Amino acid sequence: MLTQDEIKRRQEWAYDLFTKKAALVITPQEKEKIEIADFGLSQFDQTGLGVLVYVNTERCCAKELAMWPRQTCPEHLHPTIGNIPGKEETFRCRAGKVWLYVSGDRVKNPNCRPPAGREKTYTVWHEIELNPGQQYTIHPDTPHWFQSGDEGAVISEFSTRSTDEQDRFTDADIARFTRIASA
Amino acid sequence: MLTQDEIKRRQEWAYDLFTKKAALVITPQEKEKIEIADFGLSQFDQTGLGVLVYVNTERCCAKELAMWPRQTCPEHLHPTIGNIPGKEETFRCRAGKVWLYVSGDRVKNPNCRPPAGREKTYTVWHEIELNPGQQYTIHPDTPHWFQSGDEGAVISEFSTRSTDEQDRFTDADIARFTRIASA
Repeated sequence: MLTQDEIKRRQEWAYDLFTKKAALVITPQEKEKIEIADFGLSQFDQTGLGVLVYVNTERCCAKELAMWPRQTCPEHLHPTIGNIPGKEETFRCRAGKVWLYVSGDRVKNPNCRPPAGREKTYTVWHEIELNPGQQYTIHPDTPHWFQSGDEGAVISEFSTRSTDEQDRFTDADIARFTRIASA
Repeated sequence: MLTQDEIKRRQEWAYDLFTKKAALVITPQEKEKIEIADFGLSQFDQTGLGVLVYVNTERCCAKELAMWPRQTCPEHLHPTIGNIPGKEETFRCRAGKVWLYVSGDRVKNPNCRPPAGREKTYTVWHEIELNPGQQYTIHPDTPHWFQSGDEGAVISEFSTRSTDEQDRFTDADIARFTRIASA
């Protein structure tokens, strides 16, 4: 659980990462809209993400993601439900470095370790390294997780509509929405 | 009509705009893929655009647009065809300035003039000014055109699938694809 103060502080941090590391122009209104997501685990430095949604319509979505050094976005997939295909997303690294793990051949010596204590909830180990200017597209129903390098990362995400509430996490303890401590 | 040399030179220019004005990281391979679009009018400095497509799948698309000072992307719309809705697109200004014109109330003193000689093919005059960090979403079947300010502009475009061949231009002389002079 994060307090309002902690959220504000982390929004500042994400804003600095966006504007200084990736030289993005973000408005003051957008800064206050940066979502500080801890996935309900209350270990934000290990498992979490800053998210600025530029646009999310019925048909498409664009965001910037801010990752603290060695922070992990936990394993999940975007399910096809009935005849509505799940979310498709392209990650483009803008600053820092990120390793992306998807289903496929297991890498021999992975560059990342899952957050301590939650190892069993990380099951896919095909590794893709993304440096600034590199990108990768993830199709619906594909389990994936990712972790930033030692300097954190800024990642642009281009996708179909985001419906976070439908995401399926491997870790049963995870809830997509951050709980905020009451003052 | 543009020669291969002219295209190469303009790719260099667009690359500089992307990387220096907007501080984007673009790979050398991407630089060579920058499309120099003159819309078949052979007046690139007046009517044209540099386009770098990051991704264009069946479902979504992301690009960067490079505009020379006071360059115009001519009036067009993305039609709904049968029961397939036309392209929806969000323009986000990253550097420089751009004025976007769409259908709606006519602005009294527009900041832009259409390219000389082609005034009759510009029919929508509701003006939206976009500075860095500002964005606007255009729905299918909406006529629109845009022009950059005196310093040019870098614009990110987030959209549904791009199907340029379906675009409908107001100017009957326009063809979406640049003809390249044979050597």
